[in-house]
Amino acid sequence: MEPPQPNNKKRVGIVGLGLIGGSLGLDLQKQGYEVYGLVRNSAIVDRAKVRGLAQVIDTNPKILKSCSVIILALPLSQIIKPPKELVTSIPLNAVVTDVGSVKTPVLKVWEKLHPKFIASHPMAGTNEAGIDAGKHDLFKGRPWVATPNEDTDHASLEVIHKLVLSLGSKWITTNSQKHDEAVALISHLPVLVSAALLHTTSQKEEKNSEATLAKLLASTGFLDTTRVGGGNPNLGLDMAMNNTEAILDVVNLYKASLEKLERMLYEKKWDMLSDELSHAQSIRSHFINT
Amino acid sequence: MEPPQPNNKKRVGIVGLGLIGGSLGLDLQKQGYEVYGLVRNSAIVDRAKVRGLAQVIDTNPKILKSCSVIILALPLSQIIKPPKELVTSIPLNAVVTDVGSVKTPVLKVWEKLHPKFIASHPMAGTNEAGIDAGKHDLFKGRPWVATPNEDTDHASLEVIHKLVLSLGSKWITTNSQKHDEAVALISHLPVLVSAALLHTTSQKEEKNSEATLAKLLASTGFLDTTRVGGGNPNLGLDMAMNNTEAILDVVNLYKASLEKLERMLYEKKWDMLSDELSHAQSIRSHFINT
Repeated sequence: MEPPQPNNKKRVGIVGLGLIGGSLGLDLQKQGYEVYGLVRNSAIVDRAKVRGLAQVIDTNPKILKSCSVIILALPLSQIIKPPKELVTSIPLNAVVTDVGSVKTPVLKVWEKLHPKFIASHPMAGTNEAGIDAGKHDLFKGRPWVATPNEDTDHASLEVIHKLVLSLGSKWITTNSQKHDEAVALISHLPVLVSAALLHTTSQKEEKNSEATLAKLLASTGFLDTTRVGGGNPNLGLDMAMNNTEAILDVVNLYKASLEKLERMLYEKKWDMLSDELSHAQSIRSHFINT
Repeated sequence: MEPPQPNNKKRVGIVGLGLIGGSLGLDLQKQGYEVYGLVRNSAIVDRAKVRGLAQVIDTNPKILKSCSVIILALPLSQIIKPPKELVTSIPLNAVVTDVGSVKTPVLKVWEKLHPKFIASHPMAGTNEAGIDAGKHDLFKGRPWVATPNEDTDHASLEVIHKLVLSLGSKWITTNSQKHDEAVALISHLPVLVSAALLHTTSQKEEKNSEATLAKLLASTGFLDTTRVGGGNPNLGLDMAMNNTEAILDVVNLYKASLEKLERMLYEKKWDMLSDELSHAQSIRSHFINT
């Protein structure tokens, strides 16, 4: 599909200019949108201006009054409990979307707050955060999931669809429960699995001195496996608090998978273990080739 | 410490010219060593010659007769059960080392086979394997662990020490048990943890269709966390077979770490979970800064 021509007159308000909001600001301006950025802290206004994250940057929510599209690029916890003055500054005729990593609780809150709300989630990121993290082309080629329900306004969905395509993202729609179960599996479970691996090295350190040697020997494999578990704790906490049931469900499946491998070592079932490791290799290749 | 000047007359035999052996061949020649490469399969001799992995490349173990240093760059299982004709082709006065990822079983076999054996393990690698995998500077800046014991010949240890420094590696000595416990923690446990994560996505797929969505949404975080678990199954099997007890020990610690996190989600102990995720972030930063 051809990316649609952006509407040059469209004014987009971005709430929060961190990694996601800042990247959106850079790319949307490049696509011809007029971008207004709302930040919480006056100390970062100048830095955001120097970086050119938006044409207008302010700490006053009133700047949203003239925007026809508003993107909530806040941490999940703030999207779910939005400040009252933010909500009252959003014009009723604006199309509003968010970028939170869990969709059911967001939809539950915002479908009551705004008639033209579209719950969405760009599957893109880096390890960076803050006003200096935003970068061009962060969303290019990455999935951007929207989770409409029966009450969703179709014209508003189409507005976000067009905006997302202009960023070069792959548009996917599903329901919020399916989205939340999928991210529990491929995004939230890895955080816990990986954090537990870091904790294990620390427990071992308390027991004896091999962990010091382990630190000297740790290679790229260890660093890759622990990257998401050693990431921003606030992101991990937000996921855990807002997608608890789906995460607990996959943690249970995970423990069974790990115990199956453990039993093969314990019982020295080497042929079975070999098959399971080959299976793991094959599963991953499907993820890469999708 | 200044890297020592290589002895230009030293002839090094490398047994196996895969990722590790091939990389050694390239770098040792650059350092002025004369390199003889022994390969198992006549079909790859030409390719190894075209790549310049060694000056002399042959399938006949007799080429080792004139080498003063011999490096066993074979899969761990073959180092532990070496072909008889390989053992009989190694001259008694040659210093021999290996590159196997578990040291106690290697030392047990080879200290009986050869008087000048040094058990060692370069902590370097890529996802590649085979005759085309070898590359320059693979060992530069990476740890290279030797595990001498009370019977180890000190002059031989010094020969390997100098060779390793000439590659730009960091030389570390410890005992084989400590080495094996450390790699169980930072190298072998991550393989199982990561393979179990891949299996979980596959189990979920059997249950319903969310795994298909998960495949579409999987981001770099998932791919990083599963890289070592989706790697070469033969390497994983070799580790499991030869370091079983140490791995089972850390799997137990790991399960306790994961269950602690799980309990915090289940009981909604968000402050505790926040502390644990911050702790994980801090632990990882120590690994990066070591």
